Amino acid sequence: MISILGSTGSIGTQALDVIRGNRDKFSVAALSCASSIELLCSQIEEFKPQAVCVAKQEDALQIQRKYGNTEVYYGRDGLLEIASMEDCDMVLNSLMGMKGLEPTIAAAEAGKNIAFANKETLVAGGEQVMRSVKKNGVRMLPVDSEHSAIFQCLEGNSRSSVRRIILTASGGPFRGYSLQELENVTLAQALRHPNWSMGKKITIDSASMVNKGLEIIEARWLFDIPAEDIQVVVHPQSVLHSAVEYADGSVIGQMGNPDMRVPIAYAFSYPERLEMLDSQESLDFFSLKEGMTFYPADRQTFKTIDLAYDACRMGGSYPVALNGANEVLVDMFLHEKIRFIDIQNNLMKVMENHRPKYNLSIGEVLEEDMKIREEVRKMML
Amino acid sequence: MISILGSTGSIGTQALDVIRGNRDKFSVAALSCASSIELLCSQIEEFKPQAVCVAKQEDALQIQRKYGNTEVYYGRDGLLEIASMEDCDMVLNSLMGMKGLEPTIAAAEAGKNIAFANKETLVAGGEQVMRSVKKNGVRMLPVDSEHSAIFQCLEGNSRSSVRRIILTASGGPFRGYSLQELENVTLAQALRHPNWSMGKKITIDSASMVNKGLEIIEARWLFDIPAEDIQVVVHPQSVLHSAVEYADGSVIGQMGNPDMRVPIAYAFSYPERLEMLDSQESLDFFSLKEGMTFYPADRQTFKTIDLAYDACRMGGSYPVALNGANEVLVDMFLHEKIRFIDIQNNLMKVMENHRPKYNLSIGEVLEEDMKIREEVRKMML
Repeated sequence: MISILGSTGSIGTQALDVIRGNRDKFSVAALSCASSIELLCSQIEEFKPQAVCVAKQEDALQIQRKYGNTEVYYGRDGLLEIASMEDCDMVLNSLMGMKGLEPTIAAAEAGKNIAFANKETLVAGGEQVMRSVKKNGVRMLPVDSEHSAIFQCLEGNSRSSVRRIILTASGGPFRGYSLQELENVTLAQALRHPNWSMGKKITIDSASMVNKGLEIIEARWLFDIPAEDIQVVVHPQSVLHSAVEYADGSVIGQMGNPDMRVPIAYAFSYPERLEMLDSQESLDFFSLKEGMTFYPADRQTFKTIDLAYDACRMGGSYPVALNGANEVLVDMFLHEKIRFIDIQNNLMKVMENHRPKYNLSIGEVLEEDMKIREEVRKMML
Repeated sequence: MISILGSTGSIGTQALDVIRGNRDKFSVAALSCASSIELLCSQIEEFKPQAVCVAKQEDALQIQRKYGNTEVYYGRDGLLEIASMEDCDMVLNSLMGMKGLEPTIAAAEAGKNIAFANKETLVAGGEQVMRSVKKNGVRMLPVDSEHSAIFQCLEGNSRSSVRRIILTASGGPFRGYSLQELENVTLAQALRHPNWSMGKKITIDSASMVNKGLEIIEARWLFDIPAEDIQVVVHPQSVLHSAVEYADGSVIGQMGNPDMRVPIAYAFSYPERLEMLDSQESLDFFSLKEGMTFYPADRQTFKTIDLAYDACRMGGSYPVALNGANEVLVDMFLHEKIRFIDIQNNLMKVMENHRPKYNLSIGEVLEEDMKIREEVRKMML
């Protein structure tokens, strides 16, 4: 029984696709979405969840009228409700941004294993989330393709022998661009990811390399490894999804075609693997025309990677600031209120001027996040 | 306590190098060699084994006079003695060829874990060896770089979800040659392997692709997988040492610099990994100038790969014939009595004319092997 927070997004719909192909193994306990009500209704009809949650009360009422047998919740409290409901073994958190933080904690405290695709939450509240995960003895199964790869490469090995994590990056649509060339890129260009089809926010984050920065911080918490032992390697073909180097010099990597259903399915079926012959073709090594190539990340053009390492090193509320500011700036760019380069430039400014706080509670993380967003909005007026 | 059968060869000396760097973890129970007596003596002085074994009685007597405290054995019986001696937890079988078969069985029956670098033995007696390994509940830890890679990629996964093994091959010095071009290659060219420094026999086997064929058969037995699920992929850079594809489309691969000490150390320390910072540099993805490239094996030029698949499929004594004939032919080529292409041409002839036997005992495998060698020698007069 799986509850899916964010069931109408890119990860959510692909997760339902995995469940659709494995009805004998999985069923849906609950679904949630913000405002894609029409899609949610068709998901209710197909998967018959016990409960659903939407953002607004009016949508909830409408759904309740239509589906009398379904428990319908709304808003923050509704999300917490379905993240911790009794008839559910696993919560897939595919929410976007900080609204996933409290439901993650709620799921952990209710003893649910968590399939995790909500990196902003770990970036801002990694310390607090992982403490709760540990305390409650639940599993945190990464769904990001890179982190799923790392997780898979760690299986059967002891953590103490990890020397380095190799976090691969496609480099995004602007790989090879100079800082100057980055000044003139358009929204349409930024939305055109070369390898992966994803939501808009993560696609922009991939173009700015903020995504890779957030992934460094996410990996730091998920795998309890210092950020300086995480190396970003640009690998344009996105075949090697990431790798782990061990003390003996051995590097274990996970490869495959770019298909998010693979890490989703692995999180659902861990430690087993599902048969995905129909939906997932075998990786064809011979079709890799230029082979698999690897380059250092261009930190002259993409300053965002160093910002993430800095945030990790300085700790406290720095990652909260980086993440919160980025969410605001990406939203402004998506609405064409700022240029692409302004994301990075303003992130540098935010990090420079940030007055850090330490030892935050979950509530304080959320407060700090709100405060930073407010500051950034003001700054951009 | 480790016994090393074949301590003066390429694998043996590298194994002692691993032990040299980890004296707190490993010590040497016994050493054996055929005729490199001088090197063996220096190994005795450095590692102070309880016992040694050489091929000839006269060498044994000479060593016994020099090292009064060492038990000295010779010949077949001596090898069986040190493969099963009491004060020893693991036997590294780095013997070359069929003389490793009986000691492997002896080690298994004495309850020793086996670090295995003697592929001919598994090719000819795979069924019998693996039956004994299973019956005696010992571990078979592959030392071949490819099979160690596969073994590592299988850790933490269930065997039932394996879809395919990707067995990589450098392609050897004659990659890209036509069948006609293969007619004129010299011994010196065949001995010049592009990536690995190894013994002469395996270097020739790499040039003829017989080595990859034998590795298919070895993998078939080690991992209990049908040969048709083992795919040979030519990968000239030898960075990806092999990989496993799972039912979900995920491919786990093991990568590293070409250094046999890594698989040797892994076999010794399994399931842990040794710290090998001094001897083993990190894999530098950025130094891969042409990236990692992959090609299908050229079965028009190298008929030996299909011979191996055929031998697997037909079973019985076919693999014994392939392996025995190859040992004789490689020896003749190393003594410049035949051309390089004659190895492959005569292997085809041997396989075509072989009258198979089935359900052989270990003794019958050895008998069959002797008979085939005799036949090949006669055929080549």
